[in-house]
Amino acid sequence: MKLIRFGEAGKEKPGIIDKEGNYLDCSAFQEDWDESFFENNGLDRLDAWLEANLDSLNKIPENSRIGSPIARPSKIICIGLNYRKHAIESGMPVPEVPIIFMKATSSLCGPNDNILIPKNSEKTDWEVELAVVIGKRAKYVSKENAMDYVAGYCVHNDVSERDFQLHHGGQWVKGKSADNFAPLGPFLATKYEIPDPHNLRLWLKLNGKTLQDSNTSDLVFDIPTLIEHLSQYMTLLPGDVISTGTPAGVGLGLTPPTYLKEGDVVELGIEGLGVAKQTAINDPEA
Amino acid sequence: MKLIRFGEAGKEKPGIIDKEGNYLDCSAFQEDWDESFFENNGLDRLDAWLEANLDSLNKIPENSRIGSPIARPSKIICIGLNYRKHAIESGMPVPEVPIIFMKATSSLCGPNDNILIPKNSEKTDWEVELAVVIGKRAKYVSKENAMDYVAGYCVHNDVSERDFQLHHGGQWVKGKSADNFAPLGPFLATKYEIPDPHNLRLWLKLNGKTLQDSNTSDLVFDIPTLIEHLSQYMTLLPGDVISTGTPAGVGLGLTPPTYLKEGDVVELGIEGLGVAKQTAINDPEA
Repeated sequence: MKLIRFGEAGKEKPGIIDKEGNYLDCSAFQEDWDESFFENNGLDRLDAWLEANLDSLNKIPENSRIGSPIARPSKIICIGLNYRKHAIESGMPVPEVPIIFMKATSSLCGPNDNILIPKNSEKTDWEVELAVVIGKRAKYVSKENAMDYVAGYCVHNDVSERDFQLHHGGQWVKGKSADNFAPLGPFLATKYEIPDPHNLRLWLKLNGKTLQDSNTSDLVFDIPTLIEHLSQYMTLLPGDVISTGTPAGVGLGLTPPTYLKEGDVVELGIEGLGVAKQTAINDPEA
Repeated sequence: MKLIRFGEAGKEKPGIIDKEGNYLDCSAFQEDWDESFFENNGLDRLDAWLEANLDSLNKIPENSRIGSPIARPSKIICIGLNYRKHAIESGMPVPEVPIIFMKATSSLCGPNDNILIPKNSEKTDWEVELAVVIGKRAKYVSKENAMDYVAGYCVHNDVSERDFQLHHGGQWVKGKSADNFAPLGPFLATKYEIPDPHNLRLWLKLNGKTLQDSNTSDLVFDIPTLIEHLSQYMTLLPGDVISTGTPAGVGLGLTPPTYLKEGDVVELGIEGLGVAKQTAINDPEA
């Protein structure tokens, strides 16, 4: 099953993509794809509801905006330096345990929304990442049964401001949390759609040129390890997002370093999880 | 006005404390003290509603549990090393710009709930802090009008696991986010109740002995400076919490360092914002 949300930002409606690739409106299910939905066994209930109602669903209007495939979660947790070559390009050691940091959930946006270059930013950068969405409350979970806690997967661009992150005084969250710094989607694929999340090509192009091109098989810490590790430190709630880290090829690692400027187009995708496309613009509120 | 929430964890009802100190049930107002409440001018609407309805409100049941005075916010942002002596006791320089980190919002709990010592924790520590609750969306706000964005204030214990925070691999969020690591309250005092938030005594006792005793006049960065700074990096949403940092006297800074063990009782308070009391227990889920 592939979940989408569509419509005006902040007022998205729930939908799905069916096997033929049709985008269908699930407003009649009367739930958003949010914490409460996942917590109350929503994926199974939706599956049963679709059995009965699939044929009666309307296609979503042409040219609908696609939003984040899940409503704002309680947290977006990101994993730092989780691909070996990206740690090296960042001038940091390959970590011995997962490095985690938060991204303000207010940065969440749709997969094709504009990237907003924040006020005073000179180093807004890209990071294609496999995002894992949690399906049920996870606390002190062991690696062995960690995959039971996964709802599904999405493409995530962990947009990052390198000066804010590294040179504005402590803790990376400062460079990870501006509005529209977390384009998610185009859709959430439930875990049954993705038999092996540890063997997916992921890539990113800037203005048509491929800059990131790797495979989740290169993750330093795999998904069960991340869920085990994170759930020792905090309780993961249904709908929470774990963004598993980015491979080499970010702007910071290029020679010379290269950052987003107004009009740049970023396309990114992951095998089985679709393609997102964002245009960078200067934040109109700046 | 003083806002409270009471009842079973996760199912709290809204209430207020009136001028005589009575705890009154505001369920009839039919809103929780959450993002939507603050966003839609809830404090003013509640004020008007109370004019008409105060006399008809029931007292809350004796021995009711008191919850966090606000529903789970989109973010809890903490300020690191924001009192000079605490920076020194932590062996860190007094910061030149605010150091910010996140606390998972899943750690929020009531002011008198137990502190849960997490699995594998040996260094669970206390931090009395003045928490500021945001009243309306704040983005690129300047110091001069920053106080317009404040809804009110609460007592917060920024419970911290020092090994998790400092020695488990990058980024403090790891030691700040366990369940019940954010007891908030007993109440939210609206800003009109607290004419000068920069001159409030704050203190914390462990088993009856005073260990923290300072005044918010010693903040390195005051509240307008924090709101200006934070809102450059991320959008603050109504109901969001900024915890302004802790003064000297945490367990990490004692000689020898001292941490919470099962049965320890922590009391903490801030002038005008009430007193909270927590007992440390080993997390029963561990």
